[in-house]
Amino acid sequence: MKLTMRLGQRSYDIIIKRGSLGRLGQLIHLDRKVLIVTDDGVPVQYVQAVAGQCGQPFTVTVPQGEGSKSIEMWRQLLARMLEENFGRRDLVIAVGGGVVGDLAGFAAACYMRGVDFVNIPTTTLAQIDSSIGGKTAVNFAGTKNIVGAFWQPRLVVVDPDTLDTLEPRHYAAGLAEAVKAGLLADTEILRLLEEEDYRDRIEEVIYRSLIVKKNIVERDETEQGDRAALNLGHTIGHGIESAAALHGHRSLYHGECVALGILPMLEDKKLAARVRRIYRRLGLPARVHYDRPAVAAAMRHDKKAQSGFITVVKIPRAGQFRLDKVPFAEVEAVVLGTSDGVAPRTKGEEE
Amino acid sequence: MKLTMRLGQRSYDIIIKRGSLGRLGQLIHLDRKVLIVTDDGVPVQYVQAVAGQCGQPFTVTVPQGEGSKSIEMWRQLLARMLEENFGRRDLVIAVGGGVVGDLAGFAAACYMRGVDFVNIPTTTLAQIDSSIGGKTAVNFAGTKNIVGAFWQPRLVVVDPDTLDTLEPRHYAAGLAEAVKAGLLADTEILRLLEEEDYRDRIEEVIYRSLIVKKNIVERDETEQGDRAALNLGHTIGHGIESAAALHGHRSLYHGECVALGILPMLEDKKLAARVRRIYRRLGLPARVHYDRPAVAAAMRHDKKAQSGFITVVKIPRAGQFRLDKVPFAEVEAVVLGTSDGVAPRTKGEEE
Repeated sequence: MKLTMRLGQRSYDIIIKRGSLGRLGQLIHLDRKVLIVTDDGVPVQYVQAVAGQCGQPFTVTVPQGEGSKSIEMWRQLLARMLEENFGRRDLVIAVGGGVVGDLAGFAAACYMRGVDFVNIPTTTLAQIDSSIGGKTAVNFAGTKNIVGAFWQPRLVVVDPDTLDTLEPRHYAAGLAEAVKAGLLADTEILRLLEEEDYRDRIEEVIYRSLIVKKNIVERDETEQGDRAALNLGHTIGHGIESAAALHGHRSLYHGECVALGILPMLEDKKLAARVRRIYRRLGLPARVHYDRPAVAAAMRHDKKAQSGFITVVKIPRAGQFRLDKVPFAEVEAVVLGTSDGVAPRTKGEEE
Repeated sequence: MKLTMRLGQRSYDIIIKRGSLGRLGQLIHLDRKVLIVTDDGVPVQYVQAVAGQCGQPFTVTVPQGEGSKSIEMWRQLLARMLEENFGRRDLVIAVGGGVVGDLAGFAAACYMRGVDFVNIPTTTLAQIDSSIGGKTAVNFAGTKNIVGAFWQPRLVVVDPDTLDTLEPRHYAAGLAEAVKAGLLADTEILRLLEEEDYRDRIEEVIYRSLIVKKNIVERDETEQGDRAALNLGHTIGHGIESAAALHGHRSLYHGECVALGILPMLEDKKLAARVRRIYRRLGLPARVHYDRPAVAAAMRHDKKAQSGFITVVKIPRAGQFRLDKVPFAEVEAVVLGTSDGVAPRTKGEEE
C-alpha cells in the first residue's frame, strides 16, 4: 500500500508493506553518505538491513528513551555529519520509534539548513502516527518538543514485519493513536480493533490511521488550524506523561497516556464505554491513578497553555471532532478531579 | 520605500525608510511578548526605541562578533523564551547586524517549531543583503553557517538613519554586497557607487540591491538553483575569512572578503579594473596579501565543496551572471596563485 502526502514541492510517499525494509534501495537513492540514527532498543538486524543497502553508511545508536531527545544528542548527530563531511545532497535515515524519528529529523532539518530525511518507523506508535506529518523536535529544560522544526521527510517506509519483535505492551500503546484516528474520522478503524484480529490486519489499521492523519496534515501543514485535531488526548496525556517522568517512574508509555487523555474528551457516555472496552481488548489502561496536582502543574507549564485559554479536541460522536477553546481552569478542574469533564455532557473518566 | 517578498503564505514586507525604527508599532503587532536580540556594539538608543514600543519586551544582548553565532548562544535565547513562558504567537526581533539576525532568526525558527521573527538590520551589510532571504544559521565546529534553517521573517525594517553611527570601514564593507548586486543584475547600482554621493543616496542603493536579491530569492527560495548566484564572491571570500579567523587576526571584515572574492570571477578585464576603482572609492580593499595554503584548506572544508566539484558564479559582463560547476582544483589553483583565474578570459585579481 502506498500513500502520497501532497504538500507541493515537499510531497512524499509513505510505503506500507511487509518486507519493504529490505527493498529500500528500490525506493530511494542510497548511493551517497547516509547517517543512520537508531536506538539501542531496536533489533540490530533492521539497522543492518538498511546499512547494507547504502553506499556510505554511518550509524549512530542513541540510548533508548525520551532522554535521547535532547539538544546535546542533536548536536552529536550534527557533529558526526560534519566530521564525515556530509554535503547538501546526503541523507539522514531514522530507524526506530518516535524518539529516533524526532531527533534524527530535527538534525536533518538543521544540517546545512536541511538535508534529505527518510523515516523508517519500527514501532506501532511511530508507524501509525509520529512518522508522518513533518514534526521534528527535541525536549529542552523539561519541556517536551519545545525546540524543533517542521521538516518533511522524502519518504516514509512502514514495514509491519518490524513489529514482530516489539514487546506486547509497547505494541498496544501505539494502538492508542489508531483509536484516536478512528474517533476523529474513521469508525472502521474502531471496528477493526474491537472485532477483528487486529494484529493480523495491522497493515490496514496503519493505512487507515495514516489516511486520517494525512488528510488533516495536508489541510494544515504547520498547525495553524485544524491540525490541532491530532492533539486529541494529548493535552491531558502529555500532562500525565510529564508528571510521571518528573517523579522518576516511567511507568506509563506515551500511547497509554494518550489513551487516558482521550477519555474526558468523549462527549457521549456510550462512546466512552465503548472506547474503554476497546482499551481492555488492546491491553491499554482504561483507568489509572495518578498524582493529580503534579499533572495539573505539568500542564500549566505545557506550551499549549497560553494566556489562560487552551484549545481542546472534543468528540461529540465517533468519527467527528470539534475544536474548543476553553479556559485552562476548566481542563485543570478535570485533572484535579473537581469537575466531571471538559465537555458538560460526559463524566470524567480518568479515575 | 517598500518591497514585498512574494513567497506564498510566507510573504513579507521590507520597509526601507529613514525613521521607521521609531514607528515599528504601526507596522507590526507589538502588544505581546517580544524577545529583542542585539549585540553590545549596537547603540543602545536603537534597542530602547524598539523596546519602548513593545508590550512585554525582554532584551538579550550578546557579545559583538561572529563568536556569538553559536549553538550555545542559540540555546540561551531558547532558554530565555522558555523561562519567560513565550507562546506560539509571541515574537523575536533582531536589532543589529548579520550575526544577530542569523542567531535570533534561527532561535525563532526552532522555538515551538517556529515563531514570528522581525529583522531590523542596523549595518550596511545587513540592510543591503543579509536581512532578507530567510537564511538563518549558527556556526559549529569551525564551519560557518553549517547549522540553521530557512525561516522567513514576518517583516524587515530598514532604517538608514541607523547607519549614521556605523564606523566608516564597517560602512564600506557592507557596500561590497551592493557591488555584488550591481554586477549580478543592476548596473545602475554600480553607477551610483562610482559617480554619486552614495551615502546621501544610500536608500536608493539599498532598495535597488534588495530588488536584485528579492528577484533571485523569489525564484528559488531554498537554493536549489539560481539562488546560488547570490554566492558571487563568497566561495573564495569565505575561505579568506575562515583562514584569517583561524589565525586569530580578524583583520578583514566579511564584506571585504567578499569584495576580494568577487574579483577572480570577473571575466572581463575592463570590468575588473572598473570594480577595483569602485572599491578604492568606497574604501574597500582591491588587493590584499593572505595565507594562500590556509585559504585553500579552509575552502576545502567549506560546505559547498562537495564531490570534487564546486559551483562558482561568474560575471561575463556587468549585470549578467553565469553559474559554472568547475573542478574544485581549478578554484584552488586560483587561490594558491598557480592559476590566473577560474574564468579563462581573466587574470586572477586576488594578489
